[in-house]
Amino acid sequence: MERYVWQHMRREEIAEMRDHGAVVILPVGSIEQHGRHLPVDVDIFMAETVALSAAQALLSEIPVLVAPSLWTGVSPHHMHFTGTLTLSVDTFSQVISEIVTCMWQHGFRHIILLNGHGGNDNTMKSTTLKLGAEGIEVAATTYWDLAAAELAELVEGERKKVGHACEIETSMMLYLRQELVDMSTAVKDLRIPPTRMPTGGPVYFWPVFDPGTTGVSGDPTLATAEKGKAFLDVITKNLVEFIRTYHKAQIP
Amino acid sequence: MERYVWQHMRREEIAEMRDHGAVVILPVGSIEQHGRHLPVDVDIFMAETVALSAAQALLSEIPVLVAPSLWTGVSPHHMHFTGTLTLSVDTFSQVISEIVTCMWQHGFRHIILLNGHGGNDNTMKSTTLKLGAEGIEVAATTYWDLAAAELAELVEGERKKVGHACEIETSMMLYLRQELVDMSTAVKDLRIPPTRMPTGGPVYFWPVFDPGTTGVSGDPTLATAEKGKAFLDVITKNLVEFIRTYHKAQIP
Amino acid sequence: MERYVWQHMRREEIAEMRDHGAVVILPVGSIEQHGRHLPVDVDIFMAETVALSAAQALLSEIPVLVAPSLWTGVSPHHMHFTGTLTLSVDTFSQVISEIVTCMWQHGFRHIILLNGHGGNDNTMKSTTLKLGAEGIEVAATTYWDLAAAELAELVEGERKKVGHACEIETSMMLYLRQELVDMSTAVKDLRIPPTRMPTGGPVYFWPVFDPGTTGVSGDPTLATAEKGKAFLDVITKNLVEFIRTYHKAQIP
Amino acid sequence: MERYVWQHMRREEIAEMRDHGAVVILPVGSIEQHGRHLPVDVDIFMAETVALSAAQALLSEIPVLVAPSLWTGVSPHHMHFTGTLTLSVDTFSQVISEIVTCMWQHGFRHIILLNGHGGNDNTMKSTTLKLGAEGIEVAATTYWDLAAAELAELVEGERKKVGHACEIETSMMLYLRQELVDMSTAVKDLRIPPTRMPTGGPVYFWPVFDPGTTGVSGDPTLATAEKGKAFLDVITKNLVEFIRTYHKAQIP
Amino acid sequence: MERYVWQHMRREEIAEMRDHGAVVILPVGSIEQHGRHLPVDVDIFMAETVALSAAQALLSEIPVLVAPSLWTGVSPHHMHFTGTLTLSVDTFSQVISEIVTCMWQHGFRHIILLNGHGGNDNTMKSTTLKLGAEGIEVAATTYWDLAAAELAELVEGERKKVGHACEIETSMMLYLRQELVDMSTAVKDLRIPPTRMPTGGPVYFWPVFDPGTTGVSGDPTLATAEKGKAFLDVITKNLVEFIRTYHKAQIP
Amino acid sequence: MERYVWQHMRREEIAEMRDHGAVVILPVGSIEQHGRHLPVDVDIFMAETVALSAAQALLSEIPVLVAPSLWTGVSPHHMHFTGTLTLSVDTFSQVISEIVTCMWQHGFRHIILLNGHGGNDNTMKSTTLKLGAEGIEVAATTYWDLAAAELAELVEGERKKVGHACEIETSMMLYLRQELVDMSTAVKDLRIPPTRMPTGGPVYFWPVFDPGTTGVSGDPTLATAEKGKAFLDVITKNLVEFIRTYHKAQIP
Repeated sequence: MERYVWQHMRREEIAEMRDHGAVVILPVGSIEQHGRHLPVDVDIFMAETVALSAAQALLSEIPVLVAPSLWTGVSPHHMHFTGTLTLSVDTFSQVISEIVTCMWQHGFRHIILLNGHGGNDNTMKSTTLKLGAEGIEVAATTYWDLAAAELAELVEGERKKVGHACEIETSMMLYLRQELVDMSTAVKDLRIPPTRMPTGGPVYFWPVFDPGTTGVSGDPTLATAEKGKAFLDVITKNLVEFIRTYHKAQIP
Repeated sequence: MERYVWQHMRREEIAEMRDHGAVVILPVGSIEQHGRHLPVDVDIFMAETVALSAAQALLSEIPVLVAPSLWTGVSPHHMHFTGTLTLSVDTFSQVISEIVTCMWQHGFRHIILLNGHGGNDNTMKSTTLKLGAEGIEVAATTYWDLAAAELAELVEGERKKVGHACEIETSMMLYLRQELVDMSTAVKDLRIPPTRMPTGGPVYFWPVFDPGTTGVSGDPTLATAEKGKAFLDVITKNLVEFIRTYHKAQIP
Repeated sequence: MERYVWQHMRREEIAEMRDHGAVVILPVGSIEQHGRHLPVDVDIFMAETVALSAAQALLSEIPVLVAPSLWTGVSPHHMHFTGTLTLSVDTFSQVISEIVTCMWQHGFRHIILLNGHGGNDNTMKSTTLKLGAEGIEVAATTYWDLAAAELAELVEGERKKVGHACEIETSMMLYLRQELVDMSTAVKDLRIPPTRMPTGGPVYFWPVFDPGTTGVSGDPTLATAEKGKAFLDVITKNLVEFIRTYHKAQIP
Repeated sequence: MERYVWQHMRREEIAEMRDHGAVVILPVGSIEQHGRHLPVDVDIFMAETVALSAAQALLSEIPVLVAPSLWTGVSPHHMHFTGTLTLSVDTFSQVISEIVTCMWQHGFRHIILLNGHGGNDNTMKSTTLKLGAEGIEVAATTYWDLAAAELAELVEGERKKVGHACEIETSMMLYLRQELVDMSTAVKDLRIPPTRMPTGGPVYFWPVFDPGTTGVSGDPTLATAEKGKAFLDVITKNLVEFIRTYHKAQIP
Repeated sequence: MERYVWQHMRREEIAEMRDHGAVVILPVGSIEQHGRHLPVDVDIFMAETVALSAAQALLSEIPVLVAPSLWTGVSPHHMHFTGTLTLSVDTFSQVISEIVTCMWQHGFRHIILLNGHGGNDNTMKSTTLKLGAEGIEVAATTYWDLAAAELAELVEGERKKVGHACEIETSMMLYLRQELVDMSTAVKDLRIPPTRMPTGGPVYFWPVFDPGTTGVSGDPTLATAEKGKAFLDVITKNLVEFIRTYHKAQIP
Repeated sequence: MERYVWQHMRREEIAEMRDHGAVVILPVGSIEQHGRHLPVDVDIFMAETVALSAAQALLSEIPVLVAPSLWTGVSPHHMHFTGTLTLSVDTFSQVISEIVTCMWQHGFRHIILLNGHGGNDNTMKSTTLKLGAEGIEVAATTYWDLAAAELAELVEGERKKVGHACEIETSMMLYLRQELVDMSTAVKDLRIPPTRMPTGGPVYFWPVFDPGTTGVSGDPTLATAEKGKAFLDVITKNLVEFIRTYHKAQIP
């Protein structure tokens, strides 16, 4: 029985965690196409896994609650492929805002939005401005940003950060849920959508995966379960470290 | 490996299900207080369980996909108790509407909203009017309505239908997840909120669980795992029957 | 001069009613096609008539105010037929919410939404959740639910409850406004939209009246003015009874 | 039986009017305080009366339909007085927009918004911009603007145009519904809200009727039923004239 | 260095103006086609110019702040011509409402919305109702309304008030920014859109400039820089006069 | 006369630019406190300046249009200081979305959102997802991201990127508008809001400038006009380079 999973607890148990100043992690992700080789829930599954790993690691040290995973993310740029389920930007922002407000009303003061989907990142962060204007202060991060340097070192291929259905994501899936991965259909595709412009650079475009694309951005053919474990370990370690600091911060 | 769980499948697998005319079930529920004795996720867990049971039962007969569970429901009337996480009525409606629209755009034509939370019922149904006005036709039901007569017969106590944290819900939880139930704190409370008015009757009120209430409506002390199995079986049976009929219907 | 009609009163008269703890009834309905034989305002007219009858019956007993009738309902499923005027679900909810909030701000604490249109029912009820979350508690009902058992007994045909332009509605119109009814065009049609699925059962569908339908659900050919009077009497009687109870309830 | 009242007609009758190129008038008004001497529905009642009078006058000449009266107007500036029921600006605009869109979808091309409440005027007109951007072209006017010059000549007091609960409104009410008017409480008050600034001039302010005001702007003590008839006649005459011209205009 | 231009000042300077009870003018306009002969920013440029002229005239007398010009106006009726940039009615209203609310929160109590675009007028005024309902009281005017009588006398052509790209607007542009005006393409066109109906009269229509129109309403061929100066002088004079009165008014 | 300034051009001139495939730059910024030493419009002024510089540099090479500057940004985190004027996140997003949609409707296919305010960055980028879902593809960047490496080298102090009212912003203001800068009040403050947590790191917080802060993040005391010129030159150079590439891209 997991005593850090919000949804498995009873109301008085959650209230007790609140009384002990628990840190709440809300995993945020998406259900969207992940190439031919990965299931559609990679992003929310990974956010949830990282959250649970950190909670477990801190079990006897800091009270941590992992809230139910929010899989309703922002993926209009993946809608060309079947399986993608997306909210609009505005509705996604509203959902986060209302759920976090409930937590705040119940008295939690250390809330981490832990995101696993690139398409959510900007909206999640702009939502913290909305919440801040209401006096609600939360932390928000996308899990791979927690260990950008370490991931870059561990990655074998030339693309050093998380793309989409890439070496990093595929490795972690091989480590955690090999039965859902079909490596025979994994393909390398280093283009960063959109395809209208040469990739990279500091200018943001509508990152659409057109029907003509593979739906991949990165090189999943390099993935191994061993690397997956290494990726996950370093991310969890850094999240744990962050929670230690955050837990001490005085939030009004 | 479950071949009927949307989120565990790859995009081409989901497209193939679509090509075979699969029925999609979207479990809809809530995270909200369930008395002192039950965890906060009863409603979404039960909707998901019923959906998966039906899919399993139909495995070799009709293609069925169970979409990821939507736990973000409408429970402002439970916010007096810690643990409740609620959307506003409008946001909940918007979420359902957008997720269902994605399924429709991917070509699915048989979509069932399978609800497990009383507070969602009206909004879920009014959302089908919104969708209908856009040319999107879906089925919507709350799982206990599928077997109202059978449940009434199986129930032991005087309250013959699902209340809240009641004999029916508690029995099914004892059958499925006994480790999360604390029967020592279960109490009988037959009042139907609101407490301003004598209960029952054809007039709807704001069904608030005030701080002074137990947060229960029904008699969980009568719950047993055996009854839980019986409840679940009859509900699943009726859902299976419905899917058989629905699957044959021609939706434009 | 009717001293219970909100709109015919002067501001100090309404304030005086408020000071005496008056119950307010807000008739809610729709303007939508009602088959070939009935005018388009049946639903709002009936809600208003029931409200006025109850107010009259209680004239020397309980102060009751009938607010102006809200005819702007939710009828997208009738838009295939000329004459239907519908709001969207969201706007209808907003209108009810804002009008009721005004009444609450003026100090009324016993407010009944008395609905006469099936298409409004779910949205009206979900709106009471919105209002409740703001601390505003109201009662909401659809008039035929007030006397479901009695109506079932009085009805002659096989369909025992209100459908659309049916035996019950047509009878009451014959009793009250015979000059607007054209019985020569009344047809029996027992199908319950939608026509995609066998009718009845616990699953809700988009209840569309397609161009191919008659726009009727029930058997208006059995209608008589005498039955109409009987229907109206029992509904009014039950509403009166409810008001007596409600008037005594202490609302915060 | 009135063959020009939308709500009293059957769907095929309305469709027939549409086929004959009928002009539709949608009376728009408000329920809001009107001093101590007038009932709260003056504005919507007058808009409806003018619409019906014009329809009657044109009965054998031009097909005219009077839609059900929209009493849900914009009166936040009257909320200090009991009896006022107001929508927000946005909801009012949305209601008009959706109702007119239904008429347009049914094929009507000559639609007149006939307003009787000062507080609605700007929002009603801005809503025609919204509708226009959707390709829906309507006419919008406030009834007293139709005869500004004539009214100014007929008025006895120094305030030559419609204020609030003034000589003009009170006279028409005495002519049409004397039993609802209490002239013993009518007071003269020539201030134009807001009371922060000297009145008149080309700059618009929040026209609030503060608790300290009479709720009147004008001199109702000069009102007579005779003048009321004269006011009504000239307004109706000008509306009839406008409809003659409008009916000939080709709207895309 | 202009000490009355909000955006050129530092935060403590603005706070000091607030402490001295400064009047704030928010110029509101549009970017939209102005015939072949005028640039697209006439309306916002003129509102800004009038505001600055008044502030300058009052420099040693009354503290006045001119806020940054709001060029995002409502011009869907000009979208047939390239160069027009329009907000929807609702967004425009929201922008004004939020910006004014900031000023009010900072402690300013005398705020003038000074509009230069006909298409904004109704929405700007209805927005003051929204603000008023929140307890925020502002003044709103369109600059030519400040001197309607004087302009009518000064105008040479038959159209005596501001139309669009007309004698008045063109003259002021010749006086202020001759280099942006191409008089060789100026044409006279006295029609007032819409072209569906004879012009003038008290009924408002969707004022669309169809592709078939010139995009002009008035006679710019009569424009001269001398008249432009005269127009501007009288408008400024009247605005100055208004500010003197307004500045003395006690706003809560 | 500047032939690349949208608002100074006539409709046919803008249409001609469109026909030549012009690139449009929409400067986006904010009006918000900038410490004691800088005026409140730094962010929008800088975005506009960079846009104009690039347009000028490309004058004889590529057609570029600079749209009117959008100063209505997102700055709720600066509202503790007078002078800040902020939109909500949702309204800001809506404004950008509607203005860009107009440009797209007029036929422009190369549109750059050039932002100068940190608080806008996430919302601007999430808005491109909204637009993309509508088939409208735009580029979005914050000007300092265009030259992050170069700026880091040119900066003298320890904080190597743009903060708020920092060495970089202050230097450019000294170079361009020295008369608005009061260096005597410039203070060094290297804290990055929020002050609840140690600064830096990959986790995003509500970046509030509390009343207790200086409103500065960086070291403006190191600012010089010379550095300002250098900063501006490199940013402009990189923007010019980007435009050259972007102009060649085929956008659907």
